[in-house]
Amino acid sequence: MTEASAPIVRADGRAPDDLREVRIERGWSEHAEGSALISFGRTKVLCTASFTNGVPRWLAGKGKGWVTAEYAMLPRATNTRNDREAVKGRIGGRTHEISRLIGRSLRAVVDMKGLGENTIQIDCDVLQADGGTRTAAITGAYVAMADAIEWARGKKFIGQKATPLIDTVSAVSVGIIDGTPMLDLAYVEDVRAETDMNVVATGRGLFVEVQGTAEGAPFDRRELDALLDLALAGTASLTEIQQAVLAESLSRA
Amino acid sequence: MTEASAPIVRADGRAPDDLREVRIERGWSEHAEGSALISFGRTKVLCTASFTNGVPRWLAGKGKGWVTAEYAMLPRATNTRNDREAVKGRIGGRTHEISRLIGRSLRAVVDMKGLGENTIQIDCDVLQADGGTRTAAITGAYVAMADAIEWARGKKFIGQKATPLIDTVSAVSVGIIDGTPMLDLAYVEDVRAETDMNVVATGRGLFVEVQGTAEGAPFDRRELDALLDLALAGTASLTEIQQAVLAESLSRA
Amino acid sequence: MTEASAPIVRADGRAPDDLREVRIERGWSEHAEGSALISFGRTKVLCTASFTNGVPRWLAGKGKGWVTAEYAMLPRATNTRNDREAVKGRIGGRTHEISRLIGRSLRAVVDMKGLGENTIQIDCDVLQADGGTRTAAITGAYVAMADAIEWARGKKFIGQKATPLIDTVSAVSVGIIDGTPMLDLAYVEDVRAETDMNVVATGRGLFVEVQGTAEGAPFDRRELDALLDLALAGTASLTEIQQAVLAESLSRA
Amino acid sequence: MTEASAPIVRADGRAPDDLREVRIERGWSEHAEGSALISFGRTKVLCTASFTNGVPRWLAGKGKGWVTAEYAMLPRATNTRNDREAVKGRIGGRTHEISRLIGRSLRAVVDMKGLGENTIQIDCDVLQADGGTRTAAITGAYVAMADAIEWARGKKFIGQKATPLIDTVSAVSVGIIDGTPMLDLAYVEDVRAETDMNVVATGRGLFVEVQGTAEGAPFDRRELDALLDLALAGTASLTEIQQAVLAESLSRA
Amino acid sequence: MTEASAPIVRADGRAPDDLREVRIERGWSEHAEGSALISFGRTKVLCTASFTNGVPRWLAGKGKGWVTAEYAMLPRATNTRNDREAVKGRIGGRTHEISRLIGRSLRAVVDMKGLGENTIQIDCDVLQADGGTRTAAITGAYVAMADAIEWARGKKFIGQKATPLIDTVSAVSVGIIDGTPMLDLAYVEDVRAETDMNVVATGRGLFVEVQGTAEGAPFDRRELDALLDLALAGTASLTEIQQAVLAESLSRA
Amino acid sequence: MTEASAPIVRADGRAPDDLREVRIERGWSEHAEGSALISFGRTKVLCTASFTNGVPRWLAGKGKGWVTAEYAMLPRATNTRNDREAVKGRIGGRTHEISRLIGRSLRAVVDMKGLGENTIQIDCDVLQADGGTRTAAITGAYVAMADAIEWARGKKFIGQKATPLIDTVSAVSVGIIDGTPMLDLAYVEDVRAETDMNVVATGRGLFVEVQGTAEGAPFDRRELDALLDLALAGTASLTEIQQAVLAESLSRA
Repeated sequence: MTEASAPIVRADGRAPDDLREVRIERGWSEHAEGSALISFGRTKVLCTASFTNGVPRWLAGKGKGWVTAEYAMLPRATNTRNDREAVKGRIGGRTHEISRLIGRSLRAVVDMKGLGENTIQIDCDVLQADGGTRTAAITGAYVAMADAIEWARGKKFIGQKATPLIDTVSAVSVGIIDGTPMLDLAYVEDVRAETDMNVVATGRGLFVEVQGTAEGAPFDRRELDALLDLALAGTASLTEIQQAVLAESLSRA
Repeated sequence: MTEASAPIVRADGRAPDDLREVRIERGWSEHAEGSALISFGRTKVLCTASFTNGVPRWLAGKGKGWVTAEYAMLPRATNTRNDREAVKGRIGGRTHEISRLIGRSLRAVVDMKGLGENTIQIDCDVLQADGGTRTAAITGAYVAMADAIEWARGKKFIGQKATPLIDTVSAVSVGIIDGTPMLDLAYVEDVRAETDMNVVATGRGLFVEVQGTAEGAPFDRRELDALLDLALAGTASLTEIQQAVLAESLSRA
Repeated sequence: MTEASAPIVRADGRAPDDLREVRIERGWSEHAEGSALISFGRTKVLCTASFTNGVPRWLAGKGKGWVTAEYAMLPRATNTRNDREAVKGRIGGRTHEISRLIGRSLRAVVDMKGLGENTIQIDCDVLQADGGTRTAAITGAYVAMADAIEWARGKKFIGQKATPLIDTVSAVSVGIIDGTPMLDLAYVEDVRAETDMNVVATGRGLFVEVQGTAEGAPFDRRELDALLDLALAGTASLTEIQQAVLAESLSRA
Repeated sequence: MTEASAPIVRADGRAPDDLREVRIERGWSEHAEGSALISFGRTKVLCTASFTNGVPRWLAGKGKGWVTAEYAMLPRATNTRNDREAVKGRIGGRTHEISRLIGRSLRAVVDMKGLGENTIQIDCDVLQADGGTRTAAITGAYVAMADAIEWARGKKFIGQKATPLIDTVSAVSVGIIDGTPMLDLAYVEDVRAETDMNVVATGRGLFVEVQGTAEGAPFDRRELDALLDLALAGTASLTEIQQAVLAESLSRA
Repeated sequence: MTEASAPIVRADGRAPDDLREVRIERGWSEHAEGSALISFGRTKVLCTASFTNGVPRWLAGKGKGWVTAEYAMLPRATNTRNDREAVKGRIGGRTHEISRLIGRSLRAVVDMKGLGENTIQIDCDVLQADGGTRTAAITGAYVAMADAIEWARGKKFIGQKATPLIDTVSAVSVGIIDGTPMLDLAYVEDVRAETDMNVVATGRGLFVEVQGTAEGAPFDRRELDALLDLALAGTASLTEIQQAVLAESLSRA
Repeated sequence: MTEASAPIVRADGRAPDDLREVRIERGWSEHAEGSALISFGRTKVLCTASFTNGVPRWLAGKGKGWVTAEYAMLPRATNTRNDREAVKGRIGGRTHEISRLIGRSLRAVVDMKGLGENTIQIDCDVLQADGGTRTAAITGAYVAMADAIEWARGKKFIGQKATPLIDTVSAVSVGIIDGTPMLDLAYVEDVRAETDMNVVATGRGLFVEVQGTAEGAPFDRRELDALLDLALAGTASLTEIQQAVLAESLSRA
């Protein structure tokens, strides 16, 4: 890491440990039981949470609920256009991987017994991509899910005593660029990172997922520790933003 | 149709020949060469136009360009969630039909020789649906395409003398409900319409597409004429809105 | 359109408002409950109607029937061979579009309550194509469906009092070539047409579908009117041919 | 097999060693380079042969041609309707198996060097099925292929000295029913057969394919021999029919 | 065939009527109800038999069982790598054909009433291929199936009185190379064979399947007879090997 | 974690920090350029490395090589049978995820310039599964890849001076069960683990991938550290086993 010298400034003017500007438009969709249009800088993801009674067949009759997620990108969310997966007729590995990650991350903070035999289907569609789409998706999907659960409590579809939400969850990317650990990588930073890590953590500061990958050279234990510190600081900030947004009253369309 | 009696008022307060509020956010996408987020009331469609040099193989070497389009709906754009076509592994007939309609509509106003051997790929993704998604898509896609063409002229990818745009194009739905022809149907109206027609017309008032379908009872020539009158008035208004939006200067991100 | 001058004669010797020779071989298939091999000139379509008890799940329990259709082309129906959609593993947009059109057209003349909870599955397979395959398909499919309904009445699968057929239906293409509106376009005419329209109408002269497309330049209201006149004359002739064929007694294999 | 007793008569009145009535309408398709509508009793198969210059990439540059085949059944060719393979999105094992058999059978009688770098694509579409569709397909496809080769010789696409056809080929099914070997099984016989065999043989009486399957009990060598005798008599008759049809002059549309 | 002269020796030193070394590792899989890793020389196939209660829906309620099979090859089982069918998204014709052959062959020796409403799913995965993969698969699958049936009898899932196995079954390939009929072709022989035949026979010496194909020139009756003789000798040897292996006691993991 | 008390013994008798028995049969496949049948206890994975000249199109002309991997499981590798992905027509998310992990892990230890414009395709097929299939796959695939590279150096397909292998790579799973961190989880342990982590590390002890997932409750930093310690000890042992196996001379078939 850097010696005492000129401070490192990133292409967009941020310090290494700064998040990009985070905005969450709660209730963006007039149809979904919960929704949020989240932006991490220029990355914009529309997250919806669809609440339905009943669970998939393999889970029926156990008194438990289910949360699942699908992630996708609009074809021109990126700098050059990608073919639609529907047109190709198959879903790519990256899409599958991220959908599964989002689903696991959200399930980690839901008490499935408390949810009862109901399903929450999360959809995260990237409208514009500039790095960090999966972490923005998780962070926004939590807000959408929280609203869908409140909606269902209002409708008495789930128990009234306590919310099935046992914690909050958010996610952020970190990486090492030119030897410096940096928080919340934009796309131009992501492609340059030697090591790239996505960390999903709860509002209480516990890990849900840690996914670190050496893109260039393998990394050592000291670098791993620095990245984890940075990530937990980032998810702590995201938790505050989520809580502030959820504290406002939601006027449903 | 109705005699001199109380005026007909629609569920959302419109008169039979009123459009819903139309808004066009030009340049919504920071990546695409042209883009527009268009809303017809609660229907919201994100339209992007991707400009690329070269044409599909079957057209190569003829000195002509190509315009093609894909339409899709986010899973929770609608009141109840629809499965993703990428997950189902196949594109449905309705999606195919609308994609083809959008492509034909836009090609009708482009001089393919003037476009040169370049391709414009239109993507229309419905973020929220409340009837008229295909007509909003065509109307917004024209704006996105116009900006992509201006971008390409600025880059000198296409001839400088004249724009390859030979006219403007917009589209609107009309239908007969309880015997009254109505303009720009919202979803609750669409499901009740006896006859449903989508009309695509140019800024000069010529027809590009006329697609009328008897949903309930077949319709006669007089009803057809009334619907065509109403539709041409609607596309004339949409043309004005398109031209006003395109007259503003576009500050690209 | 044309001044007072030499009459316009088409490549195959027809006048602009002539149909091609139409032949209908009723009961061509020994297995189907209704069938017809129809030809519009060199275009030949085998239409079968399969009657089954029961309806799709989404319609069950409502006391109503269902009519649906699938259209396809043999690979060498055309001048150069097309790959089979089964081999490609997906159905093309054009096939989907025409299948849906045939289904809607036939449903327009069936009283679904009268049909009871039964399904008629129409299959239209183009054995040889020379333009107008979708209009020949609709016209032949009506005959096949009428026979399947009679078969079911004979078997007492549907109510005996009245046929669920509330009208007849046929279809024809029209187009403008070199400024002249022409009826029932053969393939060589179809590719030259500036405007191309398919009209589906009932025996009583009401419209079921009007699908007009500007292939070259957009068209004006006067041209649209001329095409509609021509089409209604064509469907009137087709109605007579259908009725004559159905008036004969059918010796089932 | 049967003792000296009353002769065995089949459901349709045939003797055990009778073929059904075989008809071949040569040149049925006006587009294909060669075609034949063949019927074995109520089984009807439309066979087309499409001739194209060039060969698949894996064969290019070797001075040899290629013959390949695809077989399919219309959905209502059978007594109850089968879903289309294009709709299911995949080709079934039976279809694959028969397509491959037809291709191999035809290739056995073509001198690929004599054919030059050209491809003949055979399509066999079953319009009506009553057992023996694969054997009718092979027998009809030979006629279509022979005409396509003559067409290509007329166009000088292949060498003028000698035809690349080195023999003729036809096929027939045989089976054992109630202990009696029978020729050319109709569908009702096919489902009752203990053993079912398809034999493809050349005009000179040599075997191209022998595919025998015990549907019920396994069969012994003596039964196998009886079936082979019967089959060779059947293909000898089919060869005569093919040669008679090909001896007529063909008036192409 | 050969006169009195030097004996014919094959590339791997075998005489024309020699099998390759056959090894069967029974119970190779610790999970499957029955399994065998079989090798015919360098060809290695892992065969598993999965026993489940219940039958496919179309067979339910008839008091009968079902046996079905799937065959596949690992991508690098062969000398050059083949793409995975899962990656291509479709199963090839050859795979389908062999899967169906294996299923039919095994069903021929099972009394389906004796099996009761249970299903045996056979999986044959080729780990290494050197010709004869389908015949090795059938021969090994019989052993796996026999063990699965014994397992089910032990569990009392099927009747205790008698085994539903009514015979044994094995398979071998034969072919004519340079005019000499040879048994159990290795890959280098298979590609050179003029005629190629796969014979499936029971332990009692009856035919279940005979599939002969002229790869080069068609074959005559005398050649066919010689191949059948050779094949029956081969399956007799394989039967002995199967019986010896099954006579040993199986220590399940 | 555990107090000073009786030592924890696992179901199979191992201590918490014991690997299962690891065996590597190098050169198992006679066709592949490199291969290894690896077992971690009852988990058995066949790994092959296919070396081909040339690279995918997107990489051509850059003087660099490529390493890619595919992972799959035989249908009865598991305790109950899974449907084949080829039959389902699509690859599942888990398969995609693991294939991508294997590819990234191996690429981390290859100097792509040193490999030249050549491709190594890794295939890992799980023959029997008992937990840890992905970590066994990576560990075995390294051995297969090392042999394929040596084969290519022997053939002079890649530069002679130095091997393009810049390090070795292996992988192991760790997890927390009843509060105790454990190494190399068997299936019964895996399903009980509260936290599950897969660690890929090089022979020098650097991280290539760290993937930790909270299956039950989220985990804290102290637990994460304990798991990382355990994993690095495990990969150090695996590195020794790999090196010992590779030090033996390989007699290729």
